[in-house]
Amino acid sequence: MFYRCRCPAHSQCVLCDLQNMGARNVCLMTDRTLSQLPPVGVVLDSLTKHGVKYKIYEDVRVEPTDKSFKAAIDFAKQGHFDVYVAVGGGSVIDTCKAANLYASHPEAEFLDFVNAPIGKGKPITATLKPLIAVPTTAGTGSETTGVAIFDFENLKAKTGIANRALKPTLGMVDPLHTLHMPSRVAANSGFDVLCHALESFTALPYNLRSPCPSNPINRPAYQGSNPISDVWARHALKIVAKYLKRAVRDAGDVEARSSMHLASVFAGIGFGNAGVHLCHGMSYPIAGNVKTHRAKGYNVEHPIVPHGLSVVLTSPAVFAFTANMCPERHLEAAQILGTDVSSIKKDDAGRVLADTLRSFLYDLEVEDGLSSVGYTKEDIPSLVKGTIPQERVTKLSPRAHTEEDLTALFAASMKLY
Amino acid sequence: MFYRCRCPAHSQCVLCDLQNMGARNVCLMTDRTLSQLPPVGVVLDSLTKHGVKYKIYEDVRVEPTDKSFKAAIDFAKQGHFDVYVAVGGGSVIDTCKAANLYASHPEAEFLDFVNAPIGKGKPITATLKPLIAVPTTAGTGSETTGVAIFDFENLKAKTGIANRALKPTLGMVDPLHTLHMPSRVAANSGFDVLCHALESFTALPYNLRSPCPSNPINRPAYQGSNPISDVWARHALKIVAKYLKRAVRDAGDVEARSSMHLASVFAGIGFGNAGVHLCHGMSYPIAGNVKTHRAKGYNVEHPIVPHGLSVVLTSPAVFAFTANMCPERHLEAAQILGTDVSSIKKDDAGRVLADTLRSFLYDLEVEDGLSSVGYTKEDIPSLVKGTIPQERVTKLSPRAHTEEDLTALFAASMKLY
Repeated sequence: MFYRCRCPAHSQCVLCDLQNMGARNVCLMTDRTLSQLPPVGVVLDSLTKHGVKYKIYEDVRVEPTDKSFKAAIDFAKQGHFDVYVAVGGGSVIDTCKAANLYASHPEAEFLDFVNAPIGKGKPITATLKPLIAVPTTAGTGSETTGVAIFDFENLKAKTGIANRALKPTLGMVDPLHTLHMPSRVAANSGFDVLCHALESFTALPYNLRSPCPSNPINRPAYQGSNPISDVWARHALKIVAKYLKRAVRDAGDVEARSSMHLASVFAGIGFGNAGVHLCHGMSYPIAGNVKTHRAKGYNVEHPIVPHGLSVVLTSPAVFAFTANMCPERHLEAAQILGTDVSSIKKDDAGRVLADTLRSFLYDLEVEDGLSSVGYTKEDIPSLVKGTIPQERVTKLSPRAHTEEDLTALFAASMKLY
Repeated sequence: MFYRCRCPAHSQCVLCDLQNMGARNVCLMTDRTLSQLPPVGVVLDSLTKHGVKYKIYEDVRVEPTDKSFKAAIDFAKQGHFDVYVAVGGGSVIDTCKAANLYASHPEAEFLDFVNAPIGKGKPITATLKPLIAVPTTAGTGSETTGVAIFDFENLKAKTGIANRALKPTLGMVDPLHTLHMPSRVAANSGFDVLCHALESFTALPYNLRSPCPSNPINRPAYQGSNPISDVWARHALKIVAKYLKRAVRDAGDVEARSSMHLASVFAGIGFGNAGVHLCHGMSYPIAGNVKTHRAKGYNVEHPIVPHGLSVVLTSPAVFAFTANMCPERHLEAAQILGTDVSSIKKDDAGRVLADTLRSFLYDLEVEDGLSSVGYTKEDIPSLVKGTIPQERVTKLSPRAHTEEDLTALFAASMKLY
């Protein structure tokens, strides 16, 4: 269950849930910015008031790395916790998933569960402790998925751990928790929702994915687009079209921020079983190779290209490239985003969706392409190299692609407008 | 997971799943009509070919009773099965859920788990055996829910067992399994989908339900309409509007029958957490008090009002009654079903949706009201009396109602056209 009503005393709800889970020793994970804000405050007050033993870990790194994951894992191993609560955006929830996983498998090496080919992709055999995810951004959908993403610093590429066992036990989706998001955080996390919806909607259909596993137990978490993920993708896209600009421009627009918070959940349920493809696959080296870019609205000491931004910057080029494989879906997406497609020919679907996205991003004052976050043409080979290991997602692209195609996609994304 | 791809050798899939569940002694439940048809045949062939031990129970009653549930339960208790497979419509799947439940609780009295106030509504403490549901009608959504409905013969009213523990482990949604449905079975089961969608879409909103339980663990299975159930209800309704007539008129229209099969799943996920209200609450005595009505297309020896028919006959009266509580939703439903509502005032929402439904049902050659299935005005007191114990669902009506209101609703449903 990933949706629940907000009872009047919403801070109490976590307590009830913790007690129902038999919690005696709680690990609360968050980051240093959030630890000063109400979403964490209400949980702490509630735990303290009712005498529930807990420890707080506030050293989660925004855009986590293998090193920051390992630090959180060490904390979890030493704490012998019986329930985890993650209050934050995708970075916090993903870090908490990893901490819970490795604390439940104390004998495992770090690479054991990391996705192949970078890691060993071993099956998870232990039962993890319950994890309550309280998202404070409207983007990641991490509260709905079995995925934890991190930046593998040696390789300068993002990778992750993907397994249903990582899915949070409960997601507490309270729109009031997102009112604290700075404008650019709301924008960038909204772009993640946009791309989750667009990529899962255009992903290779489930019945064209190959090889078909000989036993259903071997089916991957990301199964390709299917009738259920389509429902979520379309619905999330409609909410993004209607509310994202309002949510970015006015932090006090509760209707818009609430709607985007739900859109994040909905897109999460969709891509969590359909998968994403090229925008996400190419985003990992864009984030991982960051040199000096500082992101507005992010209170961090290191250079970052925020995840949602790293994903959306290639979206016009990507959908222009994939459109011919399923032009109707690309046109439908353009229509949902506000373009009149009634007289557009199928052959023009890619151009039209790309133009629609450029216009949408321009309105939201998005940086003008990869060049504006510090990349030049000379960086393209390393960006391509960092995309190759992301086969887990890129193989869900509806159109097969070569290294030359990836090179062209990065080149076409240097400037957007 | 309630959706899965159909691999080319679809009969093999059940086998793989059974083997993954460690099945050594399988209970296959179905009814006497289906036992002669391909959906059962492919499962049996596969079990036989691979030497998996099984027993078949084909005495499921269409529109089951407490007596027929108990017979299936006895069979299950004696068989000591480790996995259940239900191949059939809602009657089969519901019977199999009950058999699995009581075989897992051999010490329990039959009334222990039946919904209060008729039964004791006790919590389910044992872990049930895995159950694979293979629906062969497109209506019940039973493969997605934790509900099992039966006719309590002494009381002449339907009641049931509702608990998340009853949810099937896996639903095998193969549209080819519905091609065998006779036309009237396709129509009646489609009406069940229609009402699942309409009732859950107009149910009391989750945040207006009272009393709000002090602990989330005490929340009922039926929580009222909410942003997630709304997505499913709207989507299912759109499919019904587009495909139900085609699916009824041409059993060979694979696109229409496939779409209705998915609509059944989607509406099931929606009402399975939002709930249904008056049409379903009033349907139970309509079905339970049946005297002599024989339903076309049903190969049974006893009089029945098929469930979907018993539900839909009151729908024009019900939605005319509830519309004032949420006229926008009633108008949106009328619009999805094909009526131009652009110039309709909110005050007319009930009349317009009722007229839309009457026209829809007329096109589908539905019997002309309760009078055409054997009821007269003299029966109304007993129909009202049989509705009172259905509080579990009727309390989700957006509009509070008295016995006089119920009397008026039954009276208004005697004739439709």
